[in-house]
Amino acid sequence: MTRRLSIALAALLLLAAGCELPERDQAPPNFVLIFADDVGYGDLSSYGHPTIRTPNLDALAHEGIKLTSFYAAAPACSPSRAALLTGRYPIRTGILWALGPDEDRGIDDSEITLAEALGAHGYRSAAIGKWHLGARDRYLPTRHGFDSYFGLLYSNDMMPPWVGTERPLELWRDTLPVEHPVDQTTLTRRYTEEAVRFIDESRGRPFFLYLAHSMAHVPLHRSQEFEGVSRGGRYGDVIEEIDWSVGRILEALRESGVEDNTLVVFTSDNGPWMYMPDRMFLEDKIKPWDAGSAGPLRGAKAGTYEGGVRVPFIAYWPGRIAPRQVSSELAVAMDLYTTLVQLAGAELPDDRSIDGKDIMPLLESGAGSPHEYFFYVYPRRLEAVRDAEWKLRITRDGSDRIVTELFHLTVDPYERFNVAGQHPEVVERLKSQMTRFAEETGATLASTSLPR
Amino acid sequence: MTRRLSIALAALLLLAAGCELPERDQAPPNFVLIFADDVGYGDLSSYGHPTIRTPNLDALAHEGIKLTSFYAAAPACSPSRAALLTGRYPIRTGILWALGPDEDRGIDDSEITLAEALGAHGYRSAAIGKWHLGARDRYLPTRHGFDSYFGLLYSNDMMPPWVGTERPLELWRDTLPVEHPVDQTTLTRRYTEEAVRFIDESRGRPFFLYLAHSMAHVPLHRSQEFEGVSRGGRYGDVIEEIDWSVGRILEALRESGVEDNTLVVFTSDNGPWMYMPDRMFLEDKIKPWDAGSAGPLRGAKAGTYEGGVRVPFIAYWPGRIAPRQVSSELAVAMDLYTTLVQLAGAELPDDRSIDGKDIMPLLESGAGSPHEYFFYVYPRRLEAVRDAEWKLRITRDGSDRIVTELFHLTVDPYERFNVAGQHPEVVERLKSQMTRFAEETGATLASTSLPR
Repeated sequence: MTRRLSIALAALLLLAAGCELPERDQAPPNFVLIFADDVGYGDLSSYGHPTIRTPNLDALAHEGIKLTSFYAAAPACSPSRAALLTGRYPIRTGILWALGPDEDRGIDDSEITLAEALGAHGYRSAAIGKWHLGARDRYLPTRHGFDSYFGLLYSNDMMPPWVGTERPLELWRDTLPVEHPVDQTTLTRRYTEEAVRFIDESRGRPFFLYLAHSMAHVPLHRSQEFEGVSRGGRYGDVIEEIDWSVGRILEALRESGVEDNTLVVFTSDNGPWMYMPDRMFLEDKIKPWDAGSAGPLRGAKAGTYEGGVRVPFIAYWPGRIAPRQVSSELAVAMDLYTTLVQLAGAELPDDRSIDGKDIMPLLESGAGSPHEYFFYVYPRRLEAVRDAEWKLRITRDGSDRIVTELFHLTVDPYERFNVAGQHPEVVERLKSQMTRFAEETGATLASTSLPR
Repeated sequence: MTRRLSIALAALLLLAAGCELPERDQAPPNFVLIFADDVGYGDLSSYGHPTIRTPNLDALAHEGIKLTSFYAAAPACSPSRAALLTGRYPIRTGILWALGPDEDRGIDDSEITLAEALGAHGYRSAAIGKWHLGARDRYLPTRHGFDSYFGLLYSNDMMPPWVGTERPLELWRDTLPVEHPVDQTTLTRRYTEEAVRFIDESRGRPFFLYLAHSMAHVPLHRSQEFEGVSRGGRYGDVIEEIDWSVGRILEALRESGVEDNTLVVFTSDNGPWMYMPDRMFLEDKIKPWDAGSAGPLRGAKAGTYEGGVRVPFIAYWPGRIAPRQVSSELAVAMDLYTTLVQLAGAELPDDRSIDGKDIMPLLESGAGSPHEYFFYVYPRRLEAVRDAEWKLRITRDGSDRIVTELFHLTVDPYERFNVAGQHPEVVERLKSQMTRFAEETGATLASTSLPR
């Protein structure tokens, strides 16, 4: 009843808002997609963090919609980003793990990225920040639909002592490195300045801004202005600088007069960094708490418990997305591809499987999820599936025994109680969905594949 | 910087709001204290629960202040309530554990309850809901300052099969039982109706409403109207009915025209119920997930990790408490005693130790905490102390060895990293505070007391 009331209210507000903006359909909307790195479900004030303060993101959530069951496509950087920009599960694009600096792998030319789909329809696109879809020339953002690029081609820890590589970590502009060593302390600020300039220079033409922060991936860096600002320690400082960035970008949208015609989305690529004591205490530069948290969710990055893939998601579009919405409807990163392409009036590729669905009805006024299922695959193994209520997880334990877990995810979102024994029919139903998806995509199953 | 800005903004809003209400000091303010049972830190939407929806509480938080470091006085019912109503640590009042139905213990006549302190200053007071400060006649609410009472004298599970007792669980009005067996499904609704009637009948006289819900203590009950309403299962239904109740009470305050002169507070008596499989599967009436959660916090009810004592806290007073505040300043349940007594212009007892401090500056505009320390005592053992940043916990493990834990609580609110070894000076400083408090109050220490 409460829910029905809020949907009715949302619809009403929407109607009211719509009336004030009869001309909103005239210009194609702009898109600002802010993609944070390793920011966990519990790291924003509006998602319950006790000490980190994110007033700008909280305000966006309050004036827009906050999703509590939004999933990154994978619990790791590269596959998550590949899916975001193609609308396809990573298993379909072949980008399955975090690509190393020396690897000759990356996004395939045959993929049609969001920038390409929108570009064909007159959009100007900028990629700013972490790319991580291939570091060789043919994989660069500007080879895949973006008009410009400024950022790190891969993770900010992909250099000694964290990662063994011969290749230096460099800051790139378009197709050339422009800084080495990289001053990581000013990355968030410089990314933001680039984003603001792009917004300013896009007047009169629809744009797609893909701002993929290098933070809050370890090693953590923030500008001097944010040192010690947060009560949440260094990690809190980093998040609060990202929040400052969000505020600055909103300001730029307002100054450019395009706020009412711009969809702003904030989300993350996967769950929080999993603390590894030995490696991370290197040179005492990283404290054990220099990482995010999935809040109450179980697990972290690289795993298929909720903490690995369920991430914060906030969408804001005044006059179009009803304010004060919180929804636990299932949505996934691939949906942004489909939703943005359709909002732009551009074409969805029809010669390949697109897994994303249009979630505008959900975002606008809290409609139900367009998804029946979400599949948890990493790297190539299909470990779990969820529907609106249940999650089935089939993995191998340390002794290579198969473990079957069933969680009643709406009632038990923290995956505390395995009820597989009590609901054999749900297990069977979801297991058959896993088999179907594995057959369709080539993902492996714990039951059929060799032990890792 | 972000924080400084929001404080400045809050102060400004406060100023603006104050200007509209020049006559606000003329009538003493009313107090509505809503005290939920076993509701954990993570159980409200505004504290990050993914599926439970609490729009009324969220709105209060948004139009008022949400505290993220607010502590119940103890991790159990009776001591927590004794402290709330006397402003004193439970160790000072002698009510140390959840009182059984057959126990001849309760609040001492020498204590000056909040109702007594306010009553001496012309306030009308009602206690509605769970009492749990003694079930014999001399301990009844109406013997301790409340003008009326309606509710259960102790926990709603204090009957067979949950608890062995000869005494029936009855619903009481003032000094007499009026219903047995109790229809628990309508308790939340009936408590709410009583509260609304009390508000209606209090026109023209300042009032103190103490609404202590019997829910969400197990066994869980909600009215038919709320069955299956929540996606969070039976527990979610119960919370959503409590949220409905909050909305109904706000409506009553508006209808009575006293909303602008009433401080409304919502909090909980301790952390969530700790699931105990064998006992709780009795008759299949309770599912393992029929309980709340501390969200990301460690531990639960009856323990001295944060999950046992840190609880949601929302305060609302339009025109007086600045909206949109979130604060992690340390505050404790005893503060409500001192704050309400001072707001009423009544007298604080000067012949005894009162541990509560005036937190109005904190609530109004985010001022700093008036506390240097909070002490975690249960039942008689002082297990931990925290200051603005650190928490020291000294306990005995299963083999009666002393375990010392130090957590950097602002940076590591989930108590994941024991850093006692790295900060011996902090350990020593806090340990001396524990010794001092133990000596002052008679609390025992793990180091000096016999193993349990």
